[in-house]
Amino acid sequence: MLSNTRAFRIEWGHCDPAGIVFFPRYFEMFDAASAALFERACGMTKYQMLKHYGTAGIPLVENRARFLISTRFGDDVSLETTVTELRRSSFTIQHRLRKAGALAVEGNETRVWAGHDPENPERIKAQPIPPELAARLRGEAP
Amino acid sequence: MLSNTRAFRIEWGHCDPAGIVFFPRYFEMFDAASAALFERACGMTKYQMLKHYGTAGIPLVENRARFLISTRFGDDVSLETTVTELRRSSFTIQHRLRKAGALAVEGNETRVWAGHDPENPERIKAQPIPPELAARLRGEAP
Amino acid sequence: MLSNTRAFRIEWGHCDPAGIVFFPRYFEMFDAASAALFERACGMTKYQMLKHYGTAGIPLVENRARFLISTRFGDDVSLETTVTELRRSSFTIQHRLRKAGALAVEGNETRVWAGHDPENPERIKAQPIPPELAARLRGEAP
Amino acid sequence: MLSNTRAFRIEWGHCDPAGIVFFPRYFEMFDAASAALFERACGMTKYQMLKHYGTAGIPLVENRARFLISTRFGDDVSLETTVTELRRSSFTIQHRLRKAGALAVEGNETRVWAGHDPENPERIKAQPIPPELAARLRGEAP
Repeated sequence: MLSNTRAFRIEWGHCDPAGIVFFPRYFEMFDAASAALFERACGMTKYQMLKHYGTAGIPLVENRARFLISTRFGDDVSLETTVTELRRSSFTIQHRLRKAGALAVEGNETRVWAGHDPENPERIKAQPIPPELAARLRGEAP
Repeated sequence: MLSNTRAFRIEWGHCDPAGIVFFPRYFEMFDAASAALFERACGMTKYQMLKHYGTAGIPLVENRARFLISTRFGDDVSLETTVTELRRSSFTIQHRLRKAGALAVEGNETRVWAGHDPENPERIKAQPIPPELAARLRGEAP
Repeated sequence: MLSNTRAFRIEWGHCDPAGIVFFPRYFEMFDAASAALFERACGMTKYQMLKHYGTAGIPLVENRARFLISTRFGDDVSLETTVTELRRSSFTIQHRLRKAGALAVEGNETRVWAGHDPENPERIKAQPIPPELAARLRGEAP
Repeated sequence: MLSNTRAFRIEWGHCDPAGIVFFPRYFEMFDAASAALFERACGMTKYQMLKHYGTAGIPLVENRARFLISTRFGDDVSLETTVTELRRSSFTIQHRLRKAGALAVEGNETRVWAGHDPENPERIKAQPIPPELAARLRGEAP
């Protein structure tokens, strides 16, 4: 399965009055990491990908996270993001944020490949993941 | 168990290019709702509560959420927040965000009552929930 | 000119490790307040307003702010928002956030009434403010 | 004067329903860039810097910005941050965010070097910028 790792620094603006990351910010980091994984899989930016496939995005169906070690501004962390399951129109992604090598936060999220509902363009609807994209997310050669 | 409900409008700034709430924003809403529940339980603002008890906050240990119906700017929603479990130093809170009466997002979170570690004031450590606060979170009369 | 005032509590998640509001959050508050002013002027949600007039939004051209008194979680504040200038397709809005009656933050922003560029629907372009909306923003009776 | 440039990609989560950056997000980017400039000046993370000098942060006194070209998710931008004025306890920083070389957003901010007020540790108070740090912010050799 495809995997991607990003390294970045925790910023002052990510943190709360306890001096540690305000947890919704982890989900912003995870969302950007999931987008980066797809950008890597299809060789386009997310913007180009949505236009190319005529899709609306990859909204969440459910997620969960465990917060093991707190991180604070100035900490350099790495975030490893991996496809863990791939189904017809949905998929599961795991995020592992590490500080100095130790697992600090683990997140798992289920998303769908969503298109605009033809009967109501304002609504979105799960659609089959395009085969060539699914192959790349599985880590298969192009 | 103590419960609290807040009504508010989804804002433009909560939403992403798909026109629906960017999911980390739901966790911001949940965090504010958990604080409001504690404010109601102890009759103080969160700021006063932390000072009164000498604590560092109520950080998350784990959480999970299900996203059932998307919401977008201009939607009026209600968010019902309830203590679902209360242990010695940790507790579980459930959030149910509804749009027009229908469940749109459900979140469950486990948090700890955290104090400053006496051996290292920079670190935080789970501590027993003060008995009078626990009683109120259980919904018992003062 | 039309004016609107909202009262709310500063949340934990608005604040940074110094325990005071992380200043970009003030701009989120101002953005929601500007939307509320327009919602009041046209009697629709912002979502309905954009659909009704076929517009793309009210993006900023420039803004400035002064930060006079810091605010922190638990503070109850009021935010007064007023149209201060109204031109053909642009307008200026002033925000005054007060804590216990004292001016804490003052923001001024210039925005445009923006439509989709007919020659390139992906681009937005300033357009004349609809006359009936302009009248209401000026505070004139419908 | 000291200057620093960072390159990054605009993320989905930075954008609003118009598909462009929600403007308060620019101020988050500016805040992180100002911190990076100070980290470069003193050779420490912001966390270490605050501990080393016993200060509370570098809060804003005022700011202003002009929004010239919109940016959207997938855009690669550069952000050049420069000290433009340095006084005893306050300083001005300019941010220039460019897309494909063109100036998209320009921000100017005045901040103070703030310590804890000795008479009330909860309050912060402007203090003289340490001379060696001032020298580096001026771009003078160590």
